[in-house]
Amino acid sequence: MNSKKITSGIALVLMLQGAYAQQKLSGFNGEHVQQQQQLEANFDKELSAAAIGNNIKTLSAQQHYLGMPRDKWVAENILQQFKSYGWDARIETYQVLFPTPKTRVLEASHPENYKAVLKEPALKEDPSTGQPDELATYNAWSADGDVTGELVFVNYGLPEDYEYLERLGISVQGKIVIAKYGRSWRGIKPKVAQEHGAIGTLIYSDPKDDGYYQGDVYPQGAYKSEYGVQRGSVMDMVIYPGDPLTPGVGATENAKRLERAEATNLLKIPVLPISYHDAAPLLAALEGPVAPESWRGALPFTYHIGPGKAKVHLKLEFDWKTVPAYNVIAFMKGSQFPDQWVIRGNHHDAWVYGAADPVSGLSALLEEAKAIGVLAKNGYKPKRTLVYAAWDGEEPGLLGSTEWVEAHAAELQQKAVAYINSDGNSRGFLGIGGSHALEPFVGEIARGITDPQTKVSVLERKQAADIVTASTVKAKKELLGKKDLTISALGSGSDYSSFLQHLGIPSLNIGFGGEGAGGEYHSIYDTYENYSRFKDPGFEYGVALSKLGGHAALRLADADVLPFDFRSLAKTINGYTTELISLAEQMRESTAVENQIINNNAYQLAGDATKPIKAPALKSEVPYLDFSKLQNALVALDKATQQLQEARSKAPLPAAKTDALNKALYQAEQQLLYDKGLPNRAWYKHTVYAPGFYTGYGVKTLPGIREAIEQRRWQEAEEQIAIAAAAVNRLTTYLQQAAAGLK
Amino acid sequence: MNSKKITSGIALVLMLQGAYAQQKLSGFNGEHVQQQQQLEANFDKELSAAAIGNNIKTLSAQQHYLGMPRDKWVAENILQQFKSYGWDARIETYQVLFPTPKTRVLEASHPENYKAVLKEPALKEDPSTGQPDELATYNAWSADGDVTGELVFVNYGLPEDYEYLERLGISVQGKIVIAKYGRSWRGIKPKVAQEHGAIGTLIYSDPKDDGYYQGDVYPQGAYKSEYGVQRGSVMDMVIYPGDPLTPGVGATENAKRLERAEATNLLKIPVLPISYHDAAPLLAALEGPVAPESWRGALPFTYHIGPGKAKVHLKLEFDWKTVPAYNVIAFMKGSQFPDQWVIRGNHHDAWVYGAADPVSGLSALLEEAKAIGVLAKNGYKPKRTLVYAAWDGEEPGLLGSTEWVEAHAAELQQKAVAYINSDGNSRGFLGIGGSHALEPFVGEIARGITDPQTKVSVLERKQAADIVTASTVKAKKELLGKKDLTISALGSGSDYSSFLQHLGIPSLNIGFGGEGAGGEYHSIYDTYENYSRFKDPGFEYGVALSKLGGHAALRLADADVLPFDFRSLAKTINGYTTELISLAEQMRESTAVENQIINNNAYQLAGDATKPIKAPALKSEVPYLDFSKLQNALVALDKATQQLQEARSKAPLPAAKTDALNKALYQAEQQLLYDKGLPNRAWYKHTVYAPGFYTGYGVKTLPGIREAIEQRRWQEAEEQIAIAAAAVNRLTTYLQQAAAGLK
Repeated sequence: MNSKKITSGIALVLMLQGAYAQQKLSGFNGEHVQQQQQLEANFDKELSAAAIGNNIKTLSAQQHYLGMPRDKWVAENILQQFKSYGWDARIETYQVLFPTPKTRVLEASHPENYKAVLKEPALKEDPSTGQPDELATYNAWSADGDVTGELVFVNYGLPEDYEYLERLGISVQGKIVIAKYGRSWRGIKPKVAQEHGAIGTLIYSDPKDDGYYQGDVYPQGAYKSEYGVQRGSVMDMVIYPGDPLTPGVGATENAKRLERAEATNLLKIPVLPISYHDAAPLLAALEGPVAPESWRGALPFTYHIGPGKAKVHLKLEFDWKTVPAYNVIAFMKGSQFPDQWVIRGNHHDAWVYGAADPVSGLSALLEEAKAIGVLAKNGYKPKRTLVYAAWDGEEPGLLGSTEWVEAHAAELQQKAVAYINSDGNSRGFLGIGGSHALEPFVGEIARGITDPQTKVSVLERKQAADIVTASTVKAKKELLGKKDLTISALGSGSDYSSFLQHLGIPSLNIGFGGEGAGGEYHSIYDTYENYSRFKDPGFEYGVALSKLGGHAALRLADADVLPFDFRSLAKTINGYTTELISLAEQMRESTAVENQIINNNAYQLAGDATKPIKAPALKSEVPYLDFSKLQNALVALDKATQQLQEARSKAPLPAAKTDALNKALYQAEQQLLYDKGLPNRAWYKHTVYAPGFYTGYGVKTLPGIREAIEQRRWQEAEEQIAIAAAAVNRLTTYLQQAAAGLK
Repeated sequence: MNSKKITSGIALVLMLQGAYAQQKLSGFNGEHVQQQQQLEANFDKELSAAAIGNNIKTLSAQQHYLGMPRDKWVAENILQQFKSYGWDARIETYQVLFPTPKTRVLEASHPENYKAVLKEPALKEDPSTGQPDELATYNAWSADGDVTGELVFVNYGLPEDYEYLERLGISVQGKIVIAKYGRSWRGIKPKVAQEHGAIGTLIYSDPKDDGYYQGDVYPQGAYKSEYGVQRGSVMDMVIYPGDPLTPGVGATENAKRLERAEATNLLKIPVLPISYHDAAPLLAALEGPVAPESWRGALPFTYHIGPGKAKVHLKLEFDWKTVPAYNVIAFMKGSQFPDQWVIRGNHHDAWVYGAADPVSGLSALLEEAKAIGVLAKNGYKPKRTLVYAAWDGEEPGLLGSTEWVEAHAAELQQKAVAYINSDGNSRGFLGIGGSHALEPFVGEIARGITDPQTKVSVLERKQAADIVTASTVKAKKELLGKKDLTISALGSGSDYSSFLQHLGIPSLNIGFGGEGAGGEYHSIYDTYENYSRFKDPGFEYGVALSKLGGHAALRLADADVLPFDFRSLAKTINGYTTELISLAEQMRESTAVENQIINNNAYQLAGDATKPIKAPALKSEVPYLDFSKLQNALVALDKATQQLQEARSKAPLPAAKTDALNKALYQAEQQLLYDKGLPNRAWYKHTVYAPGFYTGYGVKTLPGIREAIEQRRWQEAEEQIAIAAAAVNRLTTYLQQAAAGLK
């Protein structure tokens, strides 16, 4: 094929896709399709990249972490914006625990009584940095502590890293560990260290992960420089997020509170994040075995595991005060279904300036609110109520959103159609995760939004990137044949968690990224200057995010029949089940082979006598698990979703039936909740989506089953299969009834 | 199974294997089995680790590169040792070209007129280092040159690295390139640079590959320090090795010689190896795109590709003199078949002190010669002639061995039963490569030699390591079921090349390694001190190598029927053919998919506008190749090898038939030679084994076909299939005749 033909071929495809985008608007009947398209076109016209940039500049001009005066200033600024756009807005305040540092000492007896700097220097190239009283570098929810001990390097601090240490005969009992940022959510590192008897944890940013190894450092480039530190929460959010003292209920003034010592998601050991400048002398002084290749970073010396002659002293004290969390909630009342809420949210608190995190996403949300306000001034009335929210206290542990959700739980389970979340945004590729019943819906939206850089749809650009970066020819081939959007499952790390995983409200997390990588995350260098140079110069991806969030909110608000498609959910759960069956198979085979290798003494024979290491421990054999309950449940679910789709696709239904159907559709996902929750973390009630117990942000799908298998608790795996099957069966029955209601 | 049972299970296996080792001695009849076992036991008793250590100390005490007085001293010392052991030894001298450096200048305009050090400092911890007039760091066979240009970083300098540069729009035309040592033989780097128009090449040792990233540096540990430099040849040995002026003939005094400009294996551009100390300022001054992840090393800055503002000046002049190469050749005449030679060799020249390379292997060989000498004094007479050789000039390009083989080609093709090579040796795992007809033979030997560290057989230890390091469960499972030794195919890099690939003489390359990794290779730090601390403390792996080489030589010398088993060869070629069919299939699929991705414009859509990169070029579609000729030839070969095996396994043959059979067996591999050789490199005549045109040391099996496919020359691939099939058919006919002769 010559290149001319190719080009015109592409043009033809683009035209057809454009036409398709015009046609496909699920849930809208007859002339409503065109009305909605016109509405969205009008909405788009009101979006201004410059206005988004201005908001990023204003709201990130000073630091504004939870509990400080500027945090309140930001909330009130947002409140005023909502009001000025014509929304009915208010601030809902909760009283939450929030520790800030009083004392931070890190020193080592070698090299020569090293005293850590623990400070990010201001940069003359970035005038935002170096403002008075910048929040000290720390991990929120570290325990108070004053500990001295030998140091052990534990790689990323994951359970498998400790298995390797065990093989080396190195214990962290009574020692301080130093772990690299990355691979897991940061809070997992001190948790696992504590499980293994460590008395303190240091977490540092290795230049291999987000520093000079990746690219030029700030301010020359975007990556983390020598003194950069990632702040962040180490609350054990996978037990429960939100105010640690009020699990499951809103942290109102008079809520019943736990004692701090009773909170099961708080650490017992001190934790401190440090720069590689401060980590390097400590690491260089370590002795003991050379770290294996996968543990090594980019510092210019040999990484040893330790311990060494040097002792490390870590002293941390915090001010454990209760502070107000200001959630800004804006309503635009639905004209037909005021008690059906389409909720859109982004947090507003930042660790320091937070231009990227969270202000970039927040500013896109505010731009949506502005544009919807203009539509409303011009006569637009959403059928359902739009709720736009700016959460406080997300950074320390999703505090603001969780307390709001817990306080309004019953109301939300009645009214919430869906929750659409965003957070930091940058140049690059569409990223959407969430409830798979909404997968076709967001696919339609993505097909209609143009990528600012390439001028194809953001869906097409994402698919191109997926194809190019796929690791095998087989995967590339499959992706080439795929036309629809695949969305990911949600773990944790932003404000959707309580909506989705605690209440079963259909949720989406939306954004762009992949071309804005850098090292500013949670540091003083996440500034407007940095953002506008490296993340989204021109703020066009901010506009794209506004379109994505706005179109989703407007379509859900106005749809005749809500665009949930449970066939996608059924297919997805089916895929997860297949994965788990295959996971168990693979574990069975690898366990058998690995045990045979261990029993054959091969590790001893293959080992270097000068580098003693034990063979891995023998593992329990993997029994055959009975997945049939779940498989049969999924067959039934599949049928029910097909039947519902057929039933609803019949010519316009009488209004009463449509109303009943809509309510059934948006509440359906709650059938997947299991009231007793996941093992040892009852707050998490969704049987399909949860953050991983040992990954943190990273999702585990069918989490009860998956984590039981991964952690080799075979009895529990069987129980969890039954629980998941029952949840699927509840959903099946529920959808069958919904379909029956249409007859 | 409990661990007690496991242990006794292992003990039982060991006992059985011991018994098996007693029984299995292919090629020996009746009481000869036990005689040979007794001989080998007596041989083993004469081996002394201390003596090997002493030889390493003595022969590496001063530098002894080709052409210098100490090189001659070493040759004469070896000659005297052979003579003292009772061998009939002599020195055979060839006159070979060998350049040494006169002028070496490397400087850069930035940073601040940097002038490279180009010198390895002496270490007080290693008294061997810092002797007068240590050979300057250089690459032999670099062209003379005085060039100035911008610098471009080309990763490892492989063809695919230049494909990536092409996508970035970076040309090396008229520029100097800097490449990392590793991934290919060093000579490939300037060759490919020259092909792309570069005017000079720097090769440096990145600390990621053999420096602090891998482990503690010398003298604390074994790895390469800041100033360490790898010397080495950059002759294009894959065209032909040996004296560049006398390809195909021995470089005797009066041999007809080419002009230097006519030698097709010499570079036209200057090349210099440098330390990372000298490379770091040059690399840090580069601008342009950030190097992709797989290009980055362990220096503490962002790796850019270049070019930059800095200009680099490289000036090199060499003294192109002709020097004598002293091969020491020792004979112990065969009592029954004096004209059947079992040849054992190791080179004696070193780049500097060369304790590991080559003296560790050489000292094991000399220990074998000593022990065989004792056997002879006690009455032992080998049936066939033993030829023990110490080659000169291996380092600059296998000069000594190649010239000897070329000079004696006709005689060797008549007389040489096999060539057994070794080179540097260290602690660790058995490594054997070579002619696959000898695979079962060396497997029997390996099963009878005890590993010094683990006390199991060296075969069992190797297999344990193979299993533990296998990358997939599937591979581990397969290896668990495997009891026999698999040997690798030979590329280049030591003195077997001319025997095997030019003359078709069955060859083996033997040694131990894997636990002696370090950064001393071809530097002044390859000293006795280094070797005895890190490579083989106690020299017990030297003894193990002596056993391996000695048992192999003695069994080949004394076997009633030579232990060639062409079933292994047939099986191996069959495996290579399957690989190639699968390679073509995979290339066909990946080409189709990749071309579709390119035609879909996905690379443009997935690309970051701030980091422009072209899509890869469209590739020619992969046609279906006709492998049937080769497949049918292999079916016939398989049958012929089975028939031969059946025929020879019949009760003792009359002596005349045995004699004819033996001669047929050891000359059989010559049937696989193709007189016109490989495309564009006629010196390489073996149709099954060759060094890769773009890998250097790395082997390409069925090289004519494989390289044609890899380089997408489809017509040539078809031709080479026919050539390989014809070679296999010749071998089949030959073996059929040998079998017929036994009737």
